[in-house]
Amino acid sequence: MTGDSQSTRGNSELPLYVGADVGGTGIKIGLVGSLGRTLAKQSIPTRQERGPQAAMAELAAVARNIVADAGFGWDDVAAIGLATPGPMDIPNGMLLQPHNLPTWWHFPIRDELAQVSQKRVVFANDANAAAFGEFWIGSGRQYPSLVMFTLGTGLGGGIIVHDMSIDGAHSHGGECGHIIIDYHETARLCGCGHRGHLEAYVSAVALVDRTEEALRTGRVSSLRSVLDAGEELTPLIVAEHALQGDSLADEIIMETARYLGIGVVSIMHTIDPSLVVLGGAMTFGGAGSPGGKRFLQRVKEEVSLRALPALAEKTKIEFASLGSDAGYLGAAGVARMQLLREKG
Amino acid sequence: MTGDSQSTRGNSELPLYVGADVGGTGIKIGLVGSLGRTLAKQSIPTRQERGPQAAMAELAAVARNIVADAGFGWDDVAAIGLATPGPMDIPNGMLLQPHNLPTWWHFPIRDELAQVSQKRVVFANDANAAAFGEFWIGSGRQYPSLVMFTLGTGLGGGIIVHDMSIDGAHSHGGECGHIIIDYHETARLCGCGHRGHLEAYVSAVALVDRTEEALRTGRVSSLRSVLDAGEELTPLIVAEHALQGDSLADEIIMETARYLGIGVVSIMHTIDPSLVVLGGAMTFGGAGSPGGKRFLQRVKEEVSLRALPALAEKTKIEFASLGSDAGYLGAAGVARMQLLREKG
Repeated sequence: MTGDSQSTRGNSELPLYVGADVGGTGIKIGLVGSLGRTLAKQSIPTRQERGPQAAMAELAAVARNIVADAGFGWDDVAAIGLATPGPMDIPNGMLLQPHNLPTWWHFPIRDELAQVSQKRVVFANDANAAAFGEFWIGSGRQYPSLVMFTLGTGLGGGIIVHDMSIDGAHSHGGECGHIIIDYHETARLCGCGHRGHLEAYVSAVALVDRTEEALRTGRVSSLRSVLDAGEELTPLIVAEHALQGDSLADEIIMETARYLGIGVVSIMHTIDPSLVVLGGAMTFGGAGSPGGKRFLQRVKEEVSLRALPALAEKTKIEFASLGSDAGYLGAAGVARMQLLREKG
Repeated sequence: MTGDSQSTRGNSELPLYVGADVGGTGIKIGLVGSLGRTLAKQSIPTRQERGPQAAMAELAAVARNIVADAGFGWDDVAAIGLATPGPMDIPNGMLLQPHNLPTWWHFPIRDELAQVSQKRVVFANDANAAAFGEFWIGSGRQYPSLVMFTLGTGLGGGIIVHDMSIDGAHSHGGECGHIIIDYHETARLCGCGHRGHLEAYVSAVALVDRTEEALRTGRVSSLRSVLDAGEELTPLIVAEHALQGDSLADEIIMETARYLGIGVVSIMHTIDPSLVVLGGAMTFGGAGSPGGKRFLQRVKEEVSLRALPALAEKTKIEFASLGSDAGYLGAAGVARMQLLREKG
């Protein structure tokens, strides 16, 4: 148990929401107050091979425990927000074929959790939930709209406009990694099988691929020592070499920022959000680090070169602030917003 | 006067809305019932050189006339929806620098019309209003969301999700013509001064440019006779030659459809609308014509090659159905929706 309850509790926290963020490795569960404060949280391993029913049973049991440990009753919980990876069918509460949960395909996960928890469950895409979390109480809390790019193994996204998550008519809203930035047949191949998608340039996989391609052309780089030692390249290693002055590593990261900026411009010209948020594991240290600052600066530079002038000037671009808590917080927030909407 | 009133009137039409669509050449004014029926309409020349105050005064006078001619009182009108070209500042009701209204720049047009009409005025971008019109009572009336591409001299767009027009944080929402489809420095130059935007491939201007470029390379084509006769190429002429069997003309139009399909895919992967609507003057005859059908088929083909399979299969792509009435109808619809929202 890593649950940490807090002593300050007022009626302002009520009703409470449980947010759960299901990933291929772990499930994060948080007890969240009405103002977005985390009152308790715990992570459990997904162990996807046990199947979704066992996992949802444990999720519900852990949620009940952290609520009790925090000094609340289960009746204080108004709803559970459940975020999972896509593809999914949000209106019907179904997982479709999430890559990292192969034994959970086509499972009615929302209703299963509702049954074992005896709570209303609101279902959300994990990247959209993270965007909603940043919108509710993170970097976007003072803005009426935002688009979040989540940089990791792939490139996720979420679009929030005036309290509404753009989930899409087919539960594919906000898949910003699949914007086309190069329509030519020579464009890079995306993990989804199509060419020229932003993810094929910006994801961790793409960054490593581009680095290896550059090394194969004979470029001088301290990164060769990594390969010579039999290790695999990662974005973190490339970033370390960039900070230590390796020009190829730096170039690869700046190129990544440049490509991301190109995708950001297409989003600015269609959604025109108040804020673009960059989150996920691959943000090169984020706001507080030299590497993160340089990355963000390069994204902004590309945007200023390519966006309509009014938008280049006015649209904010910032790092996310909730880290890996964004998912469960956003899931709780989406559940809360859904209940508020229904109350009218 | 081209106003045409209709005899069937019930309480179901009330309250009424006036929709006005201001263009560089003309202003369309419609009296629209609560269910979206046009009860009367009239067009007046914009005569932009007279300035916005004179134009708004005439707009208000004509609106009063068509309301009276249709047998209603001015009090039956709940609000006026006013659509204009951008760039604009929607929250503040200001025109900024619309290209085709050069003497109207930085004018508070919404409040001017409110004053001379003594009505609440709801302000909208013209392309977004057209999209809302199609959403309310046109091709999209049975769908919960749509994105409309308006093919004309430029390439406009509008995004409607669950009754909400995505106007954007800086009144630039839905500018789908400025999606980047090619990030390279060799990409085509857009009218906005940047490279690789969808409009630089798909607009009427781009179609003519691409045709002329192809002719300069020495391609055989019946289109040469047009230039030899001292006439200028237009999309309509290119379309006519395509229908008469000219292979270059056909290739240019099919390429236009292909480029449009590429932009549609980026929209499908971010907004994921139920429906994509193609409207505007350059739709090659639209749904009822062989040219239009072939164009639409080629758009769909490109989408099926490039979109995530679930979206390629499920997302509808259709022509708009309201023609040039979409703007005033949508403006009226946006005004109605705004009032309904405020009533709660």
